Amino acid sequence: MRINKYNHLSEQDIIYKYLQRLNFKKLESFNFKNDGAFLFHKLNQDIAITNDTIVESIDFFKYDEPESIAQKIVTCNLSDLSSMGVDPYAYTLSLSIPNKTNHVWIKKFTNKLLYLQKKYNFFLLGGDICKSNQIQISANFFGYIKNKHIITRELSAINDDIWVTGSIGDSFIGLLLKKNKINIDKKLQDYFLQKYLYPTPSMIGSQLINYSKSAIDISDGFIGDLSKLLNGNLGADISYAKIPFSRNASILINKKLISSKKLMCGGDDYELIFTSSVKNEFLIRALANKNKTKISKVCRIIEKKGIFIDGKKIHNINNSYQYFF
Amino acid sequence: MRINKYNHLSEQDIIYKYLQRLNFKKLESFNFKNDGAFLFHKLNQDIAITNDTIVESIDFFKYDEPESIAQKIVTCNLSDLSSMGVDPYAYTLSLSIPNKTNHVWIKKFTNKLLYLQKKYNFFLLGGDICKSNQIQISANFFGYIKNKHIITRELSAINDDIWVTGSIGDSFIGLLLKKNKINIDKKLQDYFLQKYLYPTPSMIGSQLINYSKSAIDISDGFIGDLSKLLNGNLGADISYAKIPFSRNASILINKKLISSKKLMCGGDDYELIFTSSVKNEFLIRALANKNKTKISKVCRIIEKKGIFIDGKKIHNINNSYQYFF
Repeated sequence: MRINKYNHLSEQDIIYKYLQRLNFKKLESFNFKNDGAFLFHKLNQDIAITNDTIVESIDFFKYDEPESIAQKIVTCNLSDLSSMGVDPYAYTLSLSIPNKTNHVWIKKFTNKLLYLQKKYNFFLLGGDICKSNQIQISANFFGYIKNKHIITRELSAINDDIWVTGSIGDSFIGLLLKKNKINIDKKLQDYFLQKYLYPTPSMIGSQLINYSKSAIDISDGFIGDLSKLLNGNLGADISYAKIPFSRNASILINKKLISSKKLMCGGDDYELIFTSSVKNEFLIRALANKNKTKISKVCRIIEKKGIFIDGKKIHNINNSYQYFF
Repeated sequence: MRINKYNHLSEQDIIYKYLQRLNFKKLESFNFKNDGAFLFHKLNQDIAITNDTIVESIDFFKYDEPESIAQKIVTCNLSDLSSMGVDPYAYTLSLSIPNKTNHVWIKKFTNKLLYLQKKYNFFLLGGDICKSNQIQISANFFGYIKNKHIITRELSAINDDIWVTGSIGDSFIGLLLKKNKINIDKKLQDYFLQKYLYPTPSMIGSQLINYSKSAIDISDGFIGDLSKLLNGNLGADISYAKIPFSRNASILINKKLISSKKLMCGGDDYELIFTSSVKNEFLIRALANKNKTKISKVCRIIEKKGIFIDGKKIHNINNSYQYFF
């Protein structure tokens, strides 16, 4: 807004050279020529909305690659949409960047956005550009969804199965590497750093809409997010053997380089935890096969409050908290 | 998100003590218990979307009152909606605040949001809370609008009248006062500071939908925003006598304490500039009366490019720029 003068880069440059190509010439964006945008009414379709913001030195490191930052703002929002059973349609972007930001940064950042827009099929509606002393990026994502077909967080039942997509904890090991808190060989380093810097959302959500009434994405550690899913009213008894650690994470656990508890309590995996009636097991396994995705049944919902691993209560060692709010 | 620990204030405090009351218990917010929110489908209604972000030390001063900051994030978004002919329905809020932020600040900030939500009839869908070293607030606002009834920026015709709501330039004088760049008596100071710190949006937009096909809100100075409305293709010949300065601004102009040009080129007035066919003049004057709002006809659109005041071309002395982007 307003006093937007960049030493190296004008607001016009950012808009016309880099951002305009992201609107895919969709009518709804007014080609960025109006004070806002709009979403067309579609018969019997509600619109799901997410909002996530990432801030330099909090959600990413000061000199992280612009491509990694683009990946993160998209992934955290897509993952929220997916947890509601929704595919993305469009988004708004609020981009706050320091004066010194240059063409190379913006080009790399928007190239990655373009790549992800094509991969997941959504476009840019519009947004705002501001000057700030930290990089800070906020996005609202929108997706159409058949009336009342949103996966909510209210309806888990005792004995429902709890499933997790993908692997958990890899991103957290990448974070420890960035902080120089773990020492492992180069090949493993590359694997975990990639998982931390370029997390990918589990986009299976929209296919779960008939099987699951309760889901959450892992943006705050598996245990913490599972607690939110249980909503303080129910419990889960997990078999340790069924927790989906990656092959590489298992190597580190076996070498005692990292505790499994830390991996369960930390990290932005952007995988989904969801509950489903026992009768859907076969259908969910078929869905996993069809999508070539790992989906693991880790436990059932129990009446006793709390999360238990092989019968022993586990306390979350990561006190952070996140809702929408 | 994530590492959100406040010395004085937890994320839970912010959500449950201060923000939850802003969702008016509307279903669409899931009472902040899901990863996102949604907007119901309404028959034949599209959804207009705006996004504005305000940043400490850019859009407001470091120690400005929290009520003023709340007023600004609401006003700049409502004003954008109004310029498209849309009334607000709901919004998302991304709130980035420093560690030191305390209960008093959050209480005052959210009390003002609550007041404005009741005044203009909208509620909070959800959002995100982050830690940052500057206060930075981003909001997306949403409003329902009958299919294709959005006021756009494309359809002005030569000879259409150009109208402005309210007065222009008062907010800019308030800004000069904040910067100690103008010296005037206390009573006038209070008037202009109020206009700068607590700007109100002109919400007449939704009533203009049948009279105007092109409108913009003044968030970047009257001349600059009029230029955007003219889109580089058309011109306007303004009669100086018709420019709606407030009585107090006229006092300063007459005393040569400020130039009228500066008042025309600067300031976030959040009034609307709109164009309308000559035949609508009577109807627009009736609308102004009905709403007890000042609406002034300042000029007509001419073929010759540029903005002229009594025949003399005026150059914008404020080079800032703003679209959605």
